[in-house]
Amino acid sequence: MHNTNQKKIAVIMGSISDWNTLKHCAYTLKELQINFDLKVISAHRTPDQLFKFAEQAKKIGYHILIAGAGGAAHLPGMLASKTLLPVLGVPVETKQLKGLDSLYSIVQMPSEVPVGTLAIGKSGAINAAILAAQILALHDKPLHIRIKNRRNDITHKILNYKPINI
Amino acid sequence: MHNTNQKKIAVIMGSISDWNTLKHCAYTLKELQINFDLKVISAHRTPDQLFKFAEQAKKIGYHILIAGAGGAAHLPGMLASKTLLPVLGVPVETKQLKGLDSLYSIVQMPSEVPVGTLAIGKSGAINAAILAAQILALHDKPLHIRIKNRRNDITHKILNYKPINI
Amino acid sequence: MHNTNQKKIAVIMGSISDWNTLKHCAYTLKELQINFDLKVISAHRTPDQLFKFAEQAKKIGYHILIAGAGGAAHLPGMLASKTLLPVLGVPVETKQLKGLDSLYSIVQMPSEVPVGTLAIGKSGAINAAILAAQILALHDKPLHIRIKNRRNDITHKILNYKPINI
Amino acid sequence: MHNTNQKKIAVIMGSISDWNTLKHCAYTLKELQINFDLKVISAHRTPDQLFKFAEQAKKIGYHILIAGAGGAAHLPGMLASKTLLPVLGVPVETKQLKGLDSLYSIVQMPSEVPVGTLAIGKSGAINAAILAAQILALHDKPLHIRIKNRRNDITHKILNYKPINI
Amino acid sequence: MHNTNQKKIAVIMGSISDWNTLKHCAYTLKELQINFDLKVISAHRTPDQLFKFAEQAKKIGYHILIAGAGGAAHLPGMLASKTLLPVLGVPVETKQLKGLDSLYSIVQMPSEVPVGTLAIGKSGAINAAILAAQILALHDKPLHIRIKNRRNDITHKILNYKPINI
Amino acid sequence: MHNTNQKKIAVIMGSISDWNTLKHCAYTLKELQINFDLKVISAHRTPDQLFKFAEQAKKIGYHILIAGAGGAAHLPGMLASKTLLPVLGVPVETKQLKGLDSLYSIVQMPSEVPVGTLAIGKSGAINAAILAAQILALHDKPLHIRIKNRRNDITHKILNYKPINI
Amino acid sequence: MHNTNQKKIAVIMGSISDWNTLKHCAYTLKELQINFDLKVISAHRTPDQLFKFAEQAKKIGYHILIAGAGGAAHLPGMLASKTLLPVLGVPVETKQLKGLDSLYSIVQMPSEVPVGTLAIGKSGAINAAILAAQILALHDKPLHIRIKNRRNDITHKILNYKPINI
Amino acid sequence: MHNTNQKKIAVIMGSISDWNTLKHCAYTLKELQINFDLKVISAHRTPDQLFKFAEQAKKIGYHILIAGAGGAAHLPGMLASKTLLPVLGVPVETKQLKGLDSLYSIVQMPSEVPVGTLAIGKSGAINAAILAAQILALHDKPLHIRIKNRRNDITHKILNYKPINI
Repeated sequence: MHNTNQKKIAVIMGSISDWNTLKHCAYTLKELQINFDLKVISAHRTPDQLFKFAEQAKKIGYHILIAGAGGAAHLPGMLASKTLLPVLGVPVETKQLKGLDSLYSIVQMPSEVPVGTLAIGKSGAINAAILAAQILALHDKPLHIRIKNRRNDITHKILNYKPINI
Repeated sequence: MHNTNQKKIAVIMGSISDWNTLKHCAYTLKELQINFDLKVISAHRTPDQLFKFAEQAKKIGYHILIAGAGGAAHLPGMLASKTLLPVLGVPVETKQLKGLDSLYSIVQMPSEVPVGTLAIGKSGAINAAILAAQILALHDKPLHIRIKNRRNDITHKILNYKPINI
Repeated sequence: MHNTNQKKIAVIMGSISDWNTLKHCAYTLKELQINFDLKVISAHRTPDQLFKFAEQAKKIGYHILIAGAGGAAHLPGMLASKTLLPVLGVPVETKQLKGLDSLYSIVQMPSEVPVGTLAIGKSGAINAAILAAQILALHDKPLHIRIKNRRNDITHKILNYKPINI
Repeated sequence: MHNTNQKKIAVIMGSISDWNTLKHCAYTLKELQINFDLKVISAHRTPDQLFKFAEQAKKIGYHILIAGAGGAAHLPGMLASKTLLPVLGVPVETKQLKGLDSLYSIVQMPSEVPVGTLAIGKSGAINAAILAAQILALHDKPLHIRIKNRRNDITHKILNYKPINI
Repeated sequence: MHNTNQKKIAVIMGSISDWNTLKHCAYTLKELQINFDLKVISAHRTPDQLFKFAEQAKKIGYHILIAGAGGAAHLPGMLASKTLLPVLGVPVETKQLKGLDSLYSIVQMPSEVPVGTLAIGKSGAINAAILAAQILALHDKPLHIRIKNRRNDITHKILNYKPINI
Repeated sequence: MHNTNQKKIAVIMGSISDWNTLKHCAYTLKELQINFDLKVISAHRTPDQLFKFAEQAKKIGYHILIAGAGGAAHLPGMLASKTLLPVLGVPVETKQLKGLDSLYSIVQMPSEVPVGTLAIGKSGAINAAILAAQILALHDKPLHIRIKNRRNDITHKILNYKPINI
Repeated sequence: MHNTNQKKIAVIMGSISDWNTLKHCAYTLKELQINFDLKVISAHRTPDQLFKFAEQAKKIGYHILIAGAGGAAHLPGMLASKTLLPVLGVPVETKQLKGLDSLYSIVQMPSEVPVGTLAIGKSGAINAAILAAQILALHDKPLHIRIKNRRNDITHKILNYKPINI
Repeated sequence: MHNTNQKKIAVIMGSISDWNTLKHCAYTLKELQINFDLKVISAHRTPDQLFKFAEQAKKIGYHILIAGAGGAAHLPGMLASKTLLPVLGVPVETKQLKGLDSLYSIVQMPSEVPVGTLAIGKSGAINAAILAAQILALHDKPLHIRIKNRRNDITHKILNYKPINI
C-alpha cells in the first residue's frame, strides 16, 4: 500500500527505543492515509547517515521531516541545519528529566534554523503527524477532508459522552 | 507593496506588548518578501474575534497562522482548535517565569490539535517566519531560492569571521 | 436528588480522562449537598461548545464554573474569557511534567481575566468544591453551617489521632 | 468615599514591601468602586494579629479576603485555615526564585483548605480584584455591569489598535 | 523508657500521612536515646492547636521543635512564628511536585523567622534528628559520645565494604 | 569588643564574593551582641584549611558553624562531614541559576550528615544568625531576652504601619 | 586480568547504593580492556579517606578519577579540590529530584576546580568510561582502535536495523 | 607566540556572541601557556564545516576540543559524534532560560558519545581550560607544574585575605 513515489514524509527516530513514542506518529499518518518512510538515524551514532539523508531529502521528494529524540536531542535540529525542508520535532520522554531535556534541546533552536516542536511524548508524536498532514493538505483537498473528518469524529466522540452519574 | 490577494500568512499577537517580540517575525517575513497580515487578537480579551478570525482564516486564503503570546498563552492553541490550517506558536518572554509558562502553555497541546512551537522570544519569532517560509516554499520555487540564499549568507558570514587575536 | 433549578455550579472537564481527578470535586460537592452539572467540554476539541456553554452559563443560572484540564490547559482560561462568572481552575496531573504545565497554563492568566487556581490534582479538585461552596455560602446560611461542620469534623479527626507508639 | 459599613473585601499584605504588587489590586478595586480595607499582617511576624483578624473577618462583614505574600508565603493559607470566607492569594515576585516559591507556597494547599490563587505579580494582583468583584457581583447587579463595561472597554481597546505599518 | 520530664524534642507532623517520612526521624531519635513527643498538628486543619502548642512549647521544656509537612507546607514556619525555640523543618515528598513545593514552602522563610531545613523525605527526617541531637549534645556529653559512635559506625561500615568483583 | 574566649559561632564564607550576602549574617549577630569569628575558607580552593578548621572547631570552643556558599556549594556539607557541631548553611545567589544550585547542593545532604539550611540570599543569611542565636539562647537567658525583644520590635514595627491612603 | 601496575583509572562511588549506576561505568571500562580500581568513598561519611585517597592518587599512578554521587553530591568536586588529576563526575539519579540535585552539585563547580560532568544516571556512567578511555587513548594507540571499533559497531548496529513494518 | 605545530587544543564557539563567555577559556589557556586554535563553527549554520573540522581534528594534531554554545546547544555533542577526541562542553548563558537549556543540551548526551560538561557561563569556560590542561599535563610535566602553581596561588590568595572588620 505504501507507494514509494508518493512518500512526502519521513519519520526519523534517534534510537530504536524511541519507537515506543514515534509509533503513535506512524499510526496517525497511516490512519490519515499518508505514505511515509520510517528511519532510525542517530545524530550522535550515525552522523554521516544523518547528513547524507538530510542532504538528499528534498531530491528524494520529501516535503516534511518528522524527527523524534530524547535527552540531548540533536536529531531534529541537525536535520534542520542540513535541509531547508520544514522539520517537526518530537521530544521523547526521558527517565530522569521526563523529557524536559529533550524539549529544551529541540525547541530552543537559534534563529534561522527552526524546528516546529510538538509536546513531549505520545501527544507530540500524534500531533507531529497531524501538523504534517495539515501542511500537506494545503495542496491536497482529499487529505484536507480526511483531517476534517478526523477532527469532526473526535468532536462528536466528546459530545456523545454519556453523562456521568455520581 | 503588501498585495492583499497574495497574503498567505497571518501573524497574530495576543497583546500589543508582544510586538517587541513578534516584530522580529514580521521583519523576517518582509526580508523574505512574503506578504502577511498583522493582527492583535487576544484569546482572553477578544475571544469572539479569535473565533471569527480562525473560522474564516482558510476562506480568506491564509495558509499558515503564526501566533505569539505570553504567560497562560492560549492564543496559538485556541486558533488551532478552530482551524485546520497549520498554526505556529511563539512563546513570548514573561517577567517572572521568563517565558517558561508561555512555552508550556503553547507546546504541551493535547493530541489532535497541534501547534508547531518555536523558541522563547526573539529567536522563536524569527524562526516562525523561516518555518512558515519553508512550508510555503514547498510550492514556491523563487521563495525556496530566497530562503536558500538567506541561509547561505548566514553561513558565509560565519565563515568570514576574522580570527580573534588574543 | 439533583434539582435542575437549583444548580449553581458546573464542573467541566477538558477530557473524560480528567474524571479521575475531577471526581473528587464532584464527590465533595455532593457531600456538601450542592447540586451541580457535570460536563465534558474540550477547549481544543469542542471549542464551539465551550463558547456556547460559557455564553449561556449566567443565563442558565450558574454562579460558579469549576474547570479542570491538563497539559496546555486552556479550558479554565477560555471559559473565563467568555463569561464574567467566577471561574475556578484545577490543574490536572500530566504524565511527563506532573501537572506543572497544567498549573502554569491555568494560573498565569493575563490581567483582567482571572482564574482562581487550586492545587495540582486531587487536593485541588476537592478544594475547588470547597472554595465554590464558600462563595455560595456567603448567601446560604445552611451551606455555611455544613461547611463549618465539615471543617470541624476534620479538625476533630486530627485531634483524636491516637498517639503513635514506637 | 470609602464607606466603612459596606466594606466586603480586605486586602492583606504580608509585608509593606508587597505594596508594590498589591497596589494594583487596590487600584482595580477602586476603579470598580468596591470599598475595601487594606492591611499589613505578617503570618510570620504578627501571627497573633493574623489569627485575631481571620477569626473576626466574617463578623466584621467581610465577604472575601485577598492576601498577597512572597517566598515561603504562608499568609493566604493561614487566613484560609482560620476562616471559612473565600480567600484569594497573590504570589508576590521574589528576588531569586521569581515568585515560584510564592506560587508553590500559596497554590499547593492541602485538601479542605483552599486558596484561590492568581498569577505571580501585577497580573495576579489585578485579577484578585476582578475575581473578588465577580464573586460580589453574583448579588450586586450594578457591580456586574461595571465589570462588564470594564471588560468591554478592554475588548474595544484591543479592537481599535491601529494597524502597525512595518 | 521515655521519661516525660526529660523530653526536649517534639516531632510534629502536619498530617498522619507524613508518618511514613517522619518515622525515620523518630527511629533515629530513639536510637540516640533521646526522648521526644510525637504529635500530629496541622497548620491548616488545627491552627489553634498549633498556636497553643507553639506558645507553650518553651514552658513545657522543649528545646527543639522538628516539623515535617508537604505541599504548601506551613507547619514549620508557623511554629517558628510563634516560638523562639529553634525549629527544624522536613519537607515531605509530594505526589506531583516531588516535595519541591514542600522545600520552597519551608526553606524560603522571610528574615527574622528561621526554619533550619533538611533534605526532602527520608534523609531529611533522619538528619533532623541528628541535627537536633547535635544541638542538645552541646550540653550533653554522653549524647555527644553516642552521636560520635554512630558516625564512627557509619564510617567503618563504608570502610569495611568488601571490594566488588566484576 | 569581640572577646575571643566567648566566641561560640564561626561564620565561614566559601569566597570573598559571598561577603555581600554573609555580611547580613554578621550584622545580625553583632546586633544580638553575639561574638563570632569570620573566615574565608573555600571547600574547593583551600580544602586542607577546611579540614583543619573543622577538626579543631569543637576544641576551639565553637558551638555552631554558619557556612555560606554558592553554585556547587560544598562548604557547609564538608564542614558537617568533619565535625559533630551543628552546621547551618546559607545558599548564596548565583548569576545563572539564581541560587537554586546552591540550595540543592546544601540542603540535599545524605542521611547522617545534616546541614540546617536557610533561605537563598540575604534572608537566609539573617536567619542563620537568628537560628544560631536561638540555639545558644537555650542556655543563655539574656540572649533569649535580646532575641525576644528583637522579635517584639519587628512585630510592633508592622503593627505601627500607618494605613496607606489610596 | 586486572594488573595493578597498569591501573590508570579509579572509579569511586559515594555510596554502595550508587553501584546500580556506576556498574555501567565499570562494565564499559572492562569491555574496553581498561584496568581500574573500584572504591566506595563517601565525601560526607569518610571524608578523611577521600582526602587521603585524592592526595595519593597521582603517586599511585592514576591518570583519571571517575566519581559518581547523588543528592548534595560533593564527592567529585572534593576529589577535584585535592588533586590535579582530571576528575569526571556522574550525577546519580535521586528519588525526589531525579538527579537534578546531583547534576547541579557536580557541574556547577567554581572556576579553577573543574569536574567534567556526564549525563544523569546510566548514560552518564557509560560515558564517563568512554571519555576516560578517549583521554587515555591520546597516548595508547591500541585503546584508540578499540574505542573506534566500539563506535563502529554501534554505528553498524543502527544501520542494520531491519525496517519496521507497520 | 602561538606555534602551530604545538597546538593541541581547539576552542570552538557556536556563535561570535559566545566570545563573551569563551574568552575566559582562551585567557586561561594563555595564562597556562597552552597554545590553541580559536574557531567559530555553528552546528546549525555551518554544519558542513563542523563535520569537516571534526573529521580532521585528530589528524591536525588536536588532543582536546573545547566547545561552547547556548540554547539548543548541539555543537559539543555533534563534535563528539564525529571524532573520538575528548570533547569538553561549556553551556553558554541564555537570555530566558539562563543557560539551563544549554546545560541540558550539552550534558544529557546518550551513552557512547560523551561530552565532559562544565558549569554554565564564565566559570565553566575557565574550567574547560583547566580540565584540558589537566589532561595534557598527564604527559607534560612543566604544564603540571604551572597548573600546580596556579592552584597554589589561588589557595594563598584566599589564605591571605585580611580579616574583615565589622
